[in-house]
Amino acid sequence: MTDKAPHGGNIYEASEKFGIDKKNILDYSANINPLGLPESMKEIIASSIENLVNYPDPYCNDLKAEISRYLNIGEENIIVGNGASEIIFLFFDTLHLRKVLMPAPTFSEYARAARGFNIEIDYFELREDESFRLNVDRLVSHMGNGVDALLLCNPNNPTSTLSAKEDILGLLEFARRNGIFVIIDEAFIELTVGSNENSMVEALAKFDNLFIIRAFTKVFAIPGLRLGYGLGSKTLIRKMWERKQPWSVNSLACSMGKLLAEESDYLARTRQWLEEETEWFYNELNRIPGLKVFKPQTNFVLIKILVDGFNSVKLRSEMAYKGILIRDAGNFMFLNDKFVRLAIKDRKSNVRLLSVLSETLKELTDDSRQL
Amino acid sequence: MTDKAPHGGNIYEASEKFGIDKKNILDYSANINPLGLPESMKEIIASSIENLVNYPDPYCNDLKAEISRYLNIGEENIIVGNGASEIIFLFFDTLHLRKVLMPAPTFSEYARAARGFNIEIDYFELREDESFRLNVDRLVSHMGNGVDALLLCNPNNPTSTLSAKEDILGLLEFARRNGIFVIIDEAFIELTVGSNENSMVEALAKFDNLFIIRAFTKVFAIPGLRLGYGLGSKTLIRKMWERKQPWSVNSLACSMGKLLAEESDYLARTRQWLEEETEWFYNELNRIPGLKVFKPQTNFVLIKILVDGFNSVKLRSEMAYKGILIRDAGNFMFLNDKFVRLAIKDRKSNVRLLSVLSETLKELTDDSRQL
Repeated sequence: MTDKAPHGGNIYEASEKFGIDKKNILDYSANINPLGLPESMKEIIASSIENLVNYPDPYCNDLKAEISRYLNIGEENIIVGNGASEIIFLFFDTLHLRKVLMPAPTFSEYARAARGFNIEIDYFELREDESFRLNVDRLVSHMGNGVDALLLCNPNNPTSTLSAKEDILGLLEFARRNGIFVIIDEAFIELTVGSNENSMVEALAKFDNLFIIRAFTKVFAIPGLRLGYGLGSKTLIRKMWERKQPWSVNSLACSMGKLLAEESDYLARTRQWLEEETEWFYNELNRIPGLKVFKPQTNFVLIKILVDGFNSVKLRSEMAYKGILIRDAGNFMFLNDKFVRLAIKDRKSNVRLLSVLSETLKELTDDSRQL
Repeated sequence: MTDKAPHGGNIYEASEKFGIDKKNILDYSANINPLGLPESMKEIIASSIENLVNYPDPYCNDLKAEISRYLNIGEENIIVGNGASEIIFLFFDTLHLRKVLMPAPTFSEYARAARGFNIEIDYFELREDESFRLNVDRLVSHMGNGVDALLLCNPNNPTSTLSAKEDILGLLEFARRNGIFVIIDEAFIELTVGSNENSMVEALAKFDNLFIIRAFTKVFAIPGLRLGYGLGSKTLIRKMWERKQPWSVNSLACSMGKLLAEESDYLARTRQWLEEETEWFYNELNRIPGLKVFKPQTNFVLIKILVDGFNSVKLRSEMAYKGILIRDAGNFMFLNDKFVRLAIKDRKSNVRLLSVLSETLKELTDDSRQL
């Protein structure tokens, strides 16, 4: 990575830079389910440790079977990878695209992966005056100029906006008529109110030009374990398996299919937390002077600093010294150094965040007035 | 993977195909340290589980520090990856080679990776009448014709042959004079008598055209966890980090640096086992009629079936039905369907292998005489 801090969640670097113990960092820069590790995780790992002496199943067949049941989709439509990252790279490596259209601001790994395969990127600007929501009519008018793929992150990172299924179905129809492939990253879909009901999984049966990226990372709070998957046509998925590095999914990750079957209670609690907390957190943030808060539709929220005299870099470092890591969103395409992104966590943490944030904003505002 | 069984170690597929429980398979097709998981593994994993809620350190700094101490090499000379597989792919992805020379038979992933990057492969035949040992003079005379890289596996898989350091130093000198890059895969080096004394690590200080591939996989018996690394010049390593997929090394694997510091006893016992068992196993195999055994220099042995009337496919399937999985080496370049590869394990397993092998050979020989 050329940029040393392109993403949230690097508590290792932050701990060194700001001189705080990793264990005392409240990490609002990574968007992970605050319910933490599911109950059955430790058991699954404990019962899989002895199996580390064997190579992982290169085709992760047990895992594919569980995903197949969970989403009611054929096993031959599933590819499994080392996090969503490998799925993104593998997709570009397999499909040989020329030019991909990306609504932005969005997750920067798509662009990095595309550049690695010499794929041209055409950015479509999500506008602040539209609250960064995807304007489908405006997007369709951009789907020309040799674009052969459209990449949507839904819900989108960092804007926390979710597009409606009808809108995406319209895009899929238009794209198919024009020979355009559509990739949808649903890494956060289970962290929206409605969960898989907001997913485009069912459309796979109808659209061969659709590929969906998913992950265990966010919803089961296991970014450390590396487990993502992709859903697409049999032909595409077969080609991707052929291109794939063998054994890239470790055998502990391969065992995580059980979570889908055993953790329905965890998923229910996640949904309940999400419904209560996103609304509450949004309202509380709105009470803090000097901020513009964009309404979140998943477990993080984009915020704009309205006060002159300091920026997202300053706010991030001031809060980091107080033990809270937030995401400076200034390096996202079409955003600037007035934007930060916050995770949404459990109530107790959120209360602390709100207090530290409002205190820090007040200090910085006072400082900037004295200048 | 186009070929459904290109490697050893797929006990999942074998279990299904031959109808035996995974737990009852004695796997002689994968070359893993038979001492099994090191003592401290479970502890390291147990103390790292809670950390799965965080993204892995993308630069694996703790791990790099341990490797640096273990091999007395700079941290800036180390790249860490998802098994040696990722290191191989990443190397080809970074260096843009045109034509790579590979002594063969050798590990097939190099060729698969090279083809993925449209790199031409020039095979140099290791000859049976030279016991598959690397003939350096003959090799040097092949290092022309636009070859810009040489890839050595040392000790080599599947031949179990180790080249001497002086020979490799000579190759490095010649290669440097001719603008040729040398890649050495030392995945099994700690499983040779002499261990790291046989490594070319020290030559890194002198040769910018050298890249060494290493792994935790074989020596610490953790193929399921996925952990490999590469050693090279600062410039090359920096470029590789820039090309690398972020977080490809899971956080449990990132914690395994501790093994290098804490498991000196395990490594000593490994060495002792190796000295005793390879010699003993080789001698015992030589007593079995109908086999030509090539002297092993690491923890596996290449064998040729001298009996007419059946081949490696038949031997493999007959032994699999008896619960022992061996590697049919017939799909290695320059070998044929008379070759199989066996791991070397603990005495008790080896005794069982020898008994089943000699019994199976006798049955097959009798069968073929009756035809």
